[in-house]
Amino acid sequence: MRKSVNSFRSQVEYGRLLKLAGSHTALGAVLAEEAGFDGVWSSSLEVSAARALPDASLLTMTEYLEAAANMQKAIAVPVVADCDSGYGNNANAQHMVHEYEAAGITAISVEDKRFPKMNSFADRGDSLVSTADFCRKLETIKNAQSGSDFFVIARTEALINGRPMSEALERARAYKDFGADAILIHSKEKSNEQILDFLEGWQAQLPVVVVPTTYPDWADHEMADAGVSVVIYANQGLRATVTSLRSTYESILSNGNTVPLEDDLTPVKEIFALQGLPAWQALD
Amino acid sequence: MRKSVNSFRSQVEYGRLLKLAGSHTALGAVLAEEAGFDGVWSSSLEVSAARALPDASLLTMTEYLEAAANMQKAIAVPVVADCDSGYGNNANAQHMVHEYEAAGITAISVEDKRFPKMNSFADRGDSLVSTADFCRKLETIKNAQSGSDFFVIARTEALINGRPMSEALERARAYKDFGADAILIHSKEKSNEQILDFLEGWQAQLPVVVVPTTYPDWADHEMADAGVSVVIYANQGLRATVTSLRSTYESILSNGNTVPLEDDLTPVKEIFALQGLPAWQALD
Amino acid sequence: MRKSVNSFRSQVEYGRLLKLAGSHTALGAVLAEEAGFDGVWSSSLEVSAARALPDASLLTMTEYLEAAANMQKAIAVPVVADCDSGYGNNANAQHMVHEYEAAGITAISVEDKRFPKMNSFADRGDSLVSTADFCRKLETIKNAQSGSDFFVIARTEALINGRPMSEALERARAYKDFGADAILIHSKEKSNEQILDFLEGWQAQLPVVVVPTTYPDWADHEMADAGVSVVIYANQGLRATVTSLRSTYESILSNGNTVPLEDDLTPVKEIFALQGLPAWQALD
Amino acid sequence: MRKSVNSFRSQVEYGRLLKLAGSHTALGAVLAEEAGFDGVWSSSLEVSAARALPDASLLTMTEYLEAAANMQKAIAVPVVADCDSGYGNNANAQHMVHEYEAAGITAISVEDKRFPKMNSFADRGDSLVSTADFCRKLETIKNAQSGSDFFVIARTEALINGRPMSEALERARAYKDFGADAILIHSKEKSNEQILDFLEGWQAQLPVVVVPTTYPDWADHEMADAGVSVVIYANQGLRATVTSLRSTYESILSNGNTVPLEDDLTPVKEIFALQGLPAWQALD
Repeated sequence: MRKSVNSFRSQVEYGRLLKLAGSHTALGAVLAEEAGFDGVWSSSLEVSAARALPDASLLTMTEYLEAAANMQKAIAVPVVADCDSGYGNNANAQHMVHEYEAAGITAISVEDKRFPKMNSFADRGDSLVSTADFCRKLETIKNAQSGSDFFVIARTEALINGRPMSEALERARAYKDFGADAILIHSKEKSNEQILDFLEGWQAQLPVVVVPTTYPDWADHEMADAGVSVVIYANQGLRATVTSLRSTYESILSNGNTVPLEDDLTPVKEIFALQGLPAWQALD
Repeated sequence: MRKSVNSFRSQVEYGRLLKLAGSHTALGAVLAEEAGFDGVWSSSLEVSAARALPDASLLTMTEYLEAAANMQKAIAVPVVADCDSGYGNNANAQHMVHEYEAAGITAISVEDKRFPKMNSFADRGDSLVSTADFCRKLETIKNAQSGSDFFVIARTEALINGRPMSEALERARAYKDFGADAILIHSKEKSNEQILDFLEGWQAQLPVVVVPTTYPDWADHEMADAGVSVVIYANQGLRATVTSLRSTYESILSNGNTVPLEDDLTPVKEIFALQGLPAWQALD
Repeated sequence: MRKSVNSFRSQVEYGRLLKLAGSHTALGAVLAEEAGFDGVWSSSLEVSAARALPDASLLTMTEYLEAAANMQKAIAVPVVADCDSGYGNNANAQHMVHEYEAAGITAISVEDKRFPKMNSFADRGDSLVSTADFCRKLETIKNAQSGSDFFVIARTEALINGRPMSEALERARAYKDFGADAILIHSKEKSNEQILDFLEGWQAQLPVVVVPTTYPDWADHEMADAGVSVVIYANQGLRATVTSLRSTYESILSNGNTVPLEDDLTPVKEIFALQGLPAWQALD
Repeated sequence: MRKSVNSFRSQVEYGRLLKLAGSHTALGAVLAEEAGFDGVWSSSLEVSAARALPDASLLTMTEYLEAAANMQKAIAVPVVADCDSGYGNNANAQHMVHEYEAAGITAISVEDKRFPKMNSFADRGDSLVSTADFCRKLETIKNAQSGSDFFVIARTEALINGRPMSEALERARAYKDFGADAILIHSKEKSNEQILDFLEGWQAQLPVVVVPTTYPDWADHEMADAGVSVVIYANQGLRATVTSLRSTYESILSNGNTVPLEDDLTPVKEIFALQGLPAWQALD
């Protein structure tokens, strides 16, 4: 029998800083769980990059969902699915909820941007939808969910779009009023100052989620002290993988064999263990 | 316009040692092509492991094909698809050819084992089908292909199953007679001696493919001298990725931030470049 | 919010004759539910035929599951998924349970045949596996399920394979002992006599499922009186569809317009209603 | 060996009226080919309805493409894929071309509407994009195709949106200038007058495609005389199927057996023939 999944809602109400790792494969999710992460971020950037395509709504909801569902099937900690801007208008967002719930996903993040979306770090700064439009989408999403466990993170790209802090806070409040279960405040600044300002203004009205890609020196215990509920290390796994694959492939070709690599390669037997092979083999 | 794919057949007839790298994602395939590999091995072990499932025919042809097709769509060098034992009986093998060709795959490998198959390094040694049965399958496969480019590597697991060299050679000859375009001779020995014996007995009747997972110290130029046409570094990318993800995830949790990692993380801008982002962004 | 699905187990314990209709699309499932069927049979014959491929394990579990899941997402009555022989050995069967449960399927049928299977009405009569082997598979399946609701119908092809009634009854008893929740007794005779003999010998040890494709004159109330719990009208929808499409396509080409057809075409507005269009349109 | 597909381009240049039938399954495509249609329209309305979802961009490109590709794999006449508005912006349209070509589709139709689109017969009349925007999308599409065979039908919804004939003609001319291979002129009028006006104004600058859903009395030879190159009977198959399934399912439940239906059910043996069963069975 498989381990049952702890819903994200039951985790986030536990009161400590939850730590999520980005992934694009079930194997990465297993390794994140093994390391001790509280959940896995099914990252649009990672899933797109794995297909060698931009994080720009080129892959479809079908493919992002499949990636998230495959991760969730392999682990007992919750997957939080990066659902971009909800894949279209309100009808698309409702369909998204039906599909993600049916696939066993217990938490999603949606952001206040147009479809098709562009990755936040490549965005031209003109991608926001109106607060009213996004509130209507959040309301649609919350009405569409069938189980009470389903957890919706409203992500505002206000700061990414160069809007003032006051707008970020106003948006967050409106999103809370229309049903958001948490607020993801995203920033592309090199420091955490914007986020600290937001947290001070926000006053813990809902749990806050952060993604410290561009401000990596903010320590987890400081986040917790500042009132952050969830931190997502969104793409470090992908970026380490690229570094590793590049050096691996280059080493093979330059050396003409894999001897210099062997010490850094996980043994095949450990791969088998990650696949759970012995238990499967015992069935036949 | 996308680059067109060079078929594997046109490559293998070029006469030098072709080098393939295993992958399970399009991104890995892009990195292998970037490094200079002649093609990419869509590895069942890698694709299964990415789903955290054993390499034991649990994933279906649908999923292995999707992985191979996604790789091929991202690169101009050929993908060689690891097709295990052909996913069932002769009818399944014919359907496989229809589906792989329709998806743009120009080369496959099929092995003389039962369905469901077990990974060669975990096999109990009782998995071979009869030579006659496999010849009939090869014949079915070759009759099913619609284009002359389609290239079929017949892989014998005779040595993996502890059969004598004479049987490996007899099987290879029979597979050639029934249409194989190349022979993959697999071994789980710690040295290349078995393979050298095979090559000596084989006398270059068809191109030979090797997979030096367990005998990593055989240099590529030595392979070429011994008469090998294709070498597949089948799973080193996956095994390096696991090592890298483990240390990345552990570092984040033990340090509480990603500062110590940053030097080993490929910058987000380089990820964007691998995704081809600038060209896509220019369209809108 | 979507209607929640009544599990098949809760239905079958209700005590009356449950009637299932075969389908291969969500639309067919909606129409079966609308007509008043208690559930929908996700038929391998129908799903294969819809792809213009034989019902012979050419499509993979991935594709059969996708069809079943798409049906279940559209209706509130349960889908019973035709899972052929379990898609391989015991490991495949365990993986099948994981995947079907994760997709929201509450009931499956598995049969005591080899993989790849051949449709019962085209079978050469040499396809049975041993009772012991199938019992071990049933045990694996029941151990693999995570929820208590999951319902497993053990289908015996003993009569289809020309075995005596005594063997059919012995197999059914063994399958019960290893966890089956119901027995599907299949026959290709032109009358219901075999089935009546089985029912008399069986003495209601577990609910019995029948598929009256070749003995269409057996009335539902007679089935109920004879002790049948579930009747599956497995492929009449597909066969009516083929008749209808053939005459529709021929009419268009022979008449040069669709005027003679119009009275038999469901109006576009009714198609919209079946799609639930008004409610979706109201969201934007 | 499978029959190779005649590209749509090679057909449309043949100079007679081509007749396409809508379908959502490979089986329907086989029946359309069998009846004598020149090609198959992979209809978004049909594919959406088969999933019991509105024709409103809820299903993703992944699912529409899978349906189209499954049809094309089963027939030798070309599939023309209904690609709605191109699934997003120009980048999405480029990705669409890459994916459709890779899957063996030789012809698509794209329309001058926003994403997400609404079915033309349910459209509120405010869905058009500017001529300039759609020309840029067409240019992107034509630049993205890798083979010269790929055929792009530009569909204008100008008349559906209540715009004057002059605008429909201007749009068609502009679409021609930016690379369209044919023009689909759509109308929801109960007569063919709008279409006749268009044809008279158009003067055969490019082949014209029509969809006589609402003006069913226009005979095919009259279309040919008026200068139409392609007629699509887009959804009659679906609408006949719904009528047929409804009466089939109702008959089973009201009669309690299938006796009254049997004469209208295609025999199982003919289903086997449509699946090509004998040839597949001969392989093992």
